[in-house]
Amino acid sequence: MGMSVLIVGSTALDSIKTPKAENPRLLGGSASHAAVAASFFSPVKLVGVVGEDFPRRYLRLYQRHGIDLAGLQIRPGKTFHWSGEYEANMNHRRTLLTELGVFETFTPTLPKSHQAAPFVLLANIAPALQLHVLNQMARPQFVAADTMDLWLNIALADLLKLLERLDAFVLNDSEARQLTKQDNLFAAFKKIHRLGPKYVIIKQGSHGSILSGPRGFFLCPAYPLPKLVDPTGAGDSFVGALIGCLAAAKGPVDDHIRRAMIYGSVVASFCCEGFGLLRTTKLQRPQIEQRVRELQELTRF
Amino acid sequence: MGMSVLIVGSTALDSIKTPKAENPRLLGGSASHAAVAASFFSPVKLVGVVGEDFPRRYLRLYQRHGIDLAGLQIRPGKTFHWSGEYEANMNHRRTLLTELGVFETFTPTLPKSHQAAPFVLLANIAPALQLHVLNQMARPQFVAADTMDLWLNIALADLLKLLERLDAFVLNDSEARQLTKQDNLFAAFKKIHRLGPKYVIIKQGSHGSILSGPRGFFLCPAYPLPKLVDPTGAGDSFVGALIGCLAAAKGPVDDHIRRAMIYGSVVASFCCEGFGLLRTTKLQRPQIEQRVRELQELTRF
Repeated sequence: MGMSVLIVGSTALDSIKTPKAENPRLLGGSASHAAVAASFFSPVKLVGVVGEDFPRRYLRLYQRHGIDLAGLQIRPGKTFHWSGEYEANMNHRRTLLTELGVFETFTPTLPKSHQAAPFVLLANIAPALQLHVLNQMARPQFVAADTMDLWLNIALADLLKLLERLDAFVLNDSEARQLTKQDNLFAAFKKIHRLGPKYVIIKQGSHGSILSGPRGFFLCPAYPLPKLVDPTGAGDSFVGALIGCLAAAKGPVDDHIRRAMIYGSVVASFCCEGFGLLRTTKLQRPQIEQRVRELQELTRF
Repeated sequence: MGMSVLIVGSTALDSIKTPKAENPRLLGGSASHAAVAASFFSPVKLVGVVGEDFPRRYLRLYQRHGIDLAGLQIRPGKTFHWSGEYEANMNHRRTLLTELGVFETFTPTLPKSHQAAPFVLLANIAPALQLHVLNQMARPQFVAADTMDLWLNIALADLLKLLERLDAFVLNDSEARQLTKQDNLFAAFKKIHRLGPKYVIIKQGSHGSILSGPRGFFLCPAYPLPKLVDPTGAGDSFVGALIGCLAAAKGPVDDHIRRAMIYGSVVASFCCEGFGLLRTTKLQRPQIEQRVRELQELTRF
């Protein structure tokens, strides 16, 4: 196993409705998805908060993945609960309910053991909290962050402050358009680089993702799925597996980031094949390697 | 140069408006774009009709590309004229005007010299005309066809008859959904194969294209463009370069079709960098090869 990855983000209970099924109070949240995905490659330290209602079996689930829970606060009150519904084509989702619970007053304080983690993933959460965690880190080697449209709307100033301090920023295409006011991806990449990050990854859902970095662009395919069950957490899984792979690799990030994205695509594809984390938590490393080989074959020419 | 390709489709004058510019009466039509694209790789025989108003310089343009015009009828009346307007993000276009002119009564009759062409591309045109041309062919080695949403709406029965006789069928993702009533691409591919073609290629615009064939799937990237000028004809260029490459290659289609699609992506990318055929007609083979190498580098992992 490689170097350890500190991951902060939301830890939640997700109630997810699709045209085919309904699943109440699954383990969810950006940090949960990212941490489980990263755990296949590197040791993970999770930073988050849950309420007293948080099912013990979900704590055991984290532990089975070797996730260090010293930074997970258990507070009086309720766990963050999100409820959403997907449309028939699974491309659009509608939030039905957001109960912040203990998240409303969350102030992450890192245990000493966490402050020296060399790899940091600031998974989707308020940029102020992402900054607050980053401020407590000693001297991280590589810092990546994800975000969502909500923060572009209500916390742009914080997000811009964060961007100056990132090595890598991951966002989806509509967020990139919103942030840069540019339709053309090249122009969007350029603008985002100017805001700070050396590596910018724009996700395009089932169309894959694009990296812009010091060695130019990389077109990363999505693993094509015959059956999409629930895309919730796919983006978090992508970035979790990505940072896990980078922490596991030796040598410069530039030598590994393309393959790390491919692993991100693969773990995200498994995530979409079950509700919440149901499929991802059953994953075995050889199944991941198998899809990496398939992606190689699917793109060879 | 390889074996010859017979291409039938529309030969038109296109008046194209984008947010940045307006260009009246450019050379256009599916067969024009496909024929010029194919001409970089194989000798082309064009089948189509134009009116007496068709500018002589456009005939010379075809000839400069070595395109055999024995199958191009010049008839009393007006050349097919299409006028369209693109929205700011270039993703949606609106037809402003369609004047069929001599196309209304077009009945392609192939010269003897054309009936033995081993490769046939039935570029976008009414399926009845595609069938009419196919019926005149001696014993083609490989037949590919493209289509558009209009024919799915008004000539589905003819299109289904055509599909039974194709080796390869090329369509875009929204047409695939419309034809198969399937959102999932895997399911769509399966249904289309059942209608006849051994090779099915679904185009996804700037997201590339996907092949489903006897050797499985191939995820073909689009060449990423810093500046999109006019996407008109990009799909026709893609399929034109594809069939041109297949005709130029030796050995089984399965050994070459992936690379042929990559050449299709590249020629389509050049097409988008100028209005109508303005950029494509200035192309040199080394510029094509350069972008093929770039795509290799952009997708390597």
